[in-house]
Amino acid sequence: MTIQRRRLLRDGAFMAAAIGASRSAAVGQDIDPESPPWVHEQGAPVLSPPYGNPSPFEKSVIRRTRVASAIPSVASSLTPLQDLHGIITPGGLHYERHHAGVPAIDPALHRLIVHGLVERPLIFTVDDLLRFPSVSRTMFLECSGNSPLWKSVPEAWTVQITHGLLSCSEWTGVRVADILDQTGLRPNAKWALAEGADAAAMTRSIPIETLLSEAIIAYAQNGERLRPEQGYPIRLLLPGFEGNTNVKWLRRLKIGTDPWETREETSKYTDLLPGGKARQFAFVMEVKSVITAPSGGQSIATRGFQELRGLAWSGRGRVVRVEVSSDGGTTWQDAALQEPVLSKCLTRFRLPWRWDGQPQHLLSRATDETGAVQPTRDTLLAARGANSYYHYNAIHGWRIRRDGVLLSAA
Amino acid sequence: MTIQRRRLLRDGAFMAAAIGASRSAAVGQDIDPESPPWVHEQGAPVLSPPYGNPSPFEKSVIRRTRVASAIPSVASSLTPLQDLHGIITPGGLHYERHHAGVPAIDPALHRLIVHGLVERPLIFTVDDLLRFPSVSRTMFLECSGNSPLWKSVPEAWTVQITHGLLSCSEWTGVRVADILDQTGLRPNAKWALAEGADAAAMTRSIPIETLLSEAIIAYAQNGERLRPEQGYPIRLLLPGFEGNTNVKWLRRLKIGTDPWETREETSKYTDLLPGGKARQFAFVMEVKSVITAPSGGQSIATRGFQELRGLAWSGRGRVVRVEVSSDGGTTWQDAALQEPVLSKCLTRFRLPWRWDGQPQHLLSRATDETGAVQPTRDTLLAARGANSYYHYNAIHGWRIRRDGVLLSAA
Repeated sequence: MTIQRRRLLRDGAFMAAAIGASRSAAVGQDIDPESPPWVHEQGAPVLSPPYGNPSPFEKSVIRRTRVASAIPSVASSLTPLQDLHGIITPGGLHYERHHAGVPAIDPALHRLIVHGLVERPLIFTVDDLLRFPSVSRTMFLECSGNSPLWKSVPEAWTVQITHGLLSCSEWTGVRVADILDQTGLRPNAKWALAEGADAAAMTRSIPIETLLSEAIIAYAQNGERLRPEQGYPIRLLLPGFEGNTNVKWLRRLKIGTDPWETREETSKYTDLLPGGKARQFAFVMEVKSVITAPSGGQSIATRGFQELRGLAWSGRGRVVRVEVSSDGGTTWQDAALQEPVLSKCLTRFRLPWRWDGQPQHLLSRATDETGAVQPTRDTLLAARGANSYYHYNAIHGWRIRRDGVLLSAA
Repeated sequence: MTIQRRRLLRDGAFMAAAIGASRSAAVGQDIDPESPPWVHEQGAPVLSPPYGNPSPFEKSVIRRTRVASAIPSVASSLTPLQDLHGIITPGGLHYERHHAGVPAIDPALHRLIVHGLVERPLIFTVDDLLRFPSVSRTMFLECSGNSPLWKSVPEAWTVQITHGLLSCSEWTGVRVADILDQTGLRPNAKWALAEGADAAAMTRSIPIETLLSEAIIAYAQNGERLRPEQGYPIRLLLPGFEGNTNVKWLRRLKIGTDPWETREETSKYTDLLPGGKARQFAFVMEVKSVITAPSGGQSIATRGFQELRGLAWSGRGRVVRVEVSSDGGTTWQDAALQEPVLSKCLTRFRLPWRWDGQPQHLLSRATDETGAVQPTRDTLLAARGANSYYHYNAIHGWRIRRDGVLLSAA
């Protein structure tokens, strides 16, 4: 513990109540700490239920939508980052983005077809894939439509709304390189079309070198088989790439020479620049961070010590530094990064902090191993204009009002 | 990919079916891979439900009991290791061991009392603990009653039954050292009594140096708040220590000079040795491993390539080596370890393998960073006799019959 942290904690001795004279005040009228009701009654039996659930007291910790969709199967839902700790997102809270809802796929009937510019077109069952050599990797997924703050920064948006199209799991599956080793590739193979088995037939063009490097066809997520909303029974995983290239319910890889210019890479998932040109195939999610606690919509109950916590990530590799400001960017302090820091994975950062009851403006700024530093909103807008919807990675934060309420602010 | 692995995979080309002449045979009569039913209908909407569940096709992947308990609140349930991948155990499948069931604790009313040989006895609310500096750690928990194979090795036991009192999560909480820094410790403080808020008032004596080193009071598990079965709202975590010292529903740490000799460290959780003496306070779970796929009760459908997979762990630090034998221990081959290999955490190991249709006897043997090697059953029994119930860590495996069925075997 650093001296500074120790001092902050000592200052925080108010955080607990002394036992003795002040005991009844400390613990309230409602409970005797030596005899809470649950020590007097037998608890629920084992296997109630065999697949367990969160505590009923956590029922507000759920995915939510930013806006109601006219077609609920063409919509997204967001991870409650403000209520999460560490880096893993439990399967039940992983963000969703569907273009035609969640198909109910029987894994025994699902097939992966690999064809096009290959030596041997092949069809794989899920059981075929399960017998292949496997690999596990903890990595983040972020929708490129996360944090659509190009035109404005609505002050009422919570971190679930501003940054919740972001989740992180331990994924397990087959290297795509091993699959393509089975099919072989023709010399002119340059791109692959990945297609999902949903009713949108979600399709994205992927460079062949991406598939041959880190790409995985995943069948497991946080130990168990994929959740339906994340592509059960199999999905593509491209570490660091924008969410929807990680095609869910994967049913086809067609190998070709050029991108297919699908809807999802022309009209959508491109960035209209000030000059009228569009950035296309901006696959990699750039370095980014956000403070999750305290965060927008919350109210700080007490002055004094609490820990600032947040998440940082980069599609280009490891996060090497996160700085935090409480004065809107005038001064910065390095946050501690939770080890192990993994490449293309969420990184939890933390900083001892105290609220003095005065207005503050909290910000976080991440740097990745390529040296890329998260830009200010002004810098990002100067470079890319305000016509974009996707790929916003500017510094974000929260203004603390005198009454302790936090509001979203760039 | 090693040459050997590449050769194995090439041999395994039967794993997928060629498209074309053999297509209908390859994909069966029941489905056209180009037009499965789910591409023709809109899928389920977003947030169905807001806290998601596994696929209905995975409904057999659940916790199970080894034997029915006369009192279902005094029982354990086991993690389905045979169905899991990577190292994370999803919260809903974490093993359970309850001595008086699962209490339904209101976190707003729960208190942690720290008293005894401290300078300042204190009472902490859960909100107090949430403001403290936090730490995350991915680590295994294993009940010391896992693999009770001292007297016999029942051949029908699956890996869920032999080794399923084992799970692994990313935990987040407060360092106990930071809590004790608040209360202070008297010079003669040597042991602490940790007590749970269940109706069994589960109590264990813990050396004070353990609490001051790596111990955590956890409030989160795999990102979200603890599951009720794992101690909601707070539990003790002692990396590498036997499961029940990681006291769930933690309500009290009493600091003293000597262990309290509670039921759970005298009549239970001790090991009766051949000479009539008992090992007591054998806290650390020793180096251990098990092959999870293929494993007991399963039947290998096809000859040829498949990957052998398993888990290794040690309460003393990192696993540095896992060897696998397919001939009952005559010859051994090094398995690959999935990075990152973390201290006191599950480590996934894998080895390319092919079944030739002949009987085989699969075994795995782990070594940890202290140089400790998992013993054979004979070695373990020679040292400790057969009167024990807890702390069995011998080499275990599976005999493959000619019909492909696997049976439990030491």
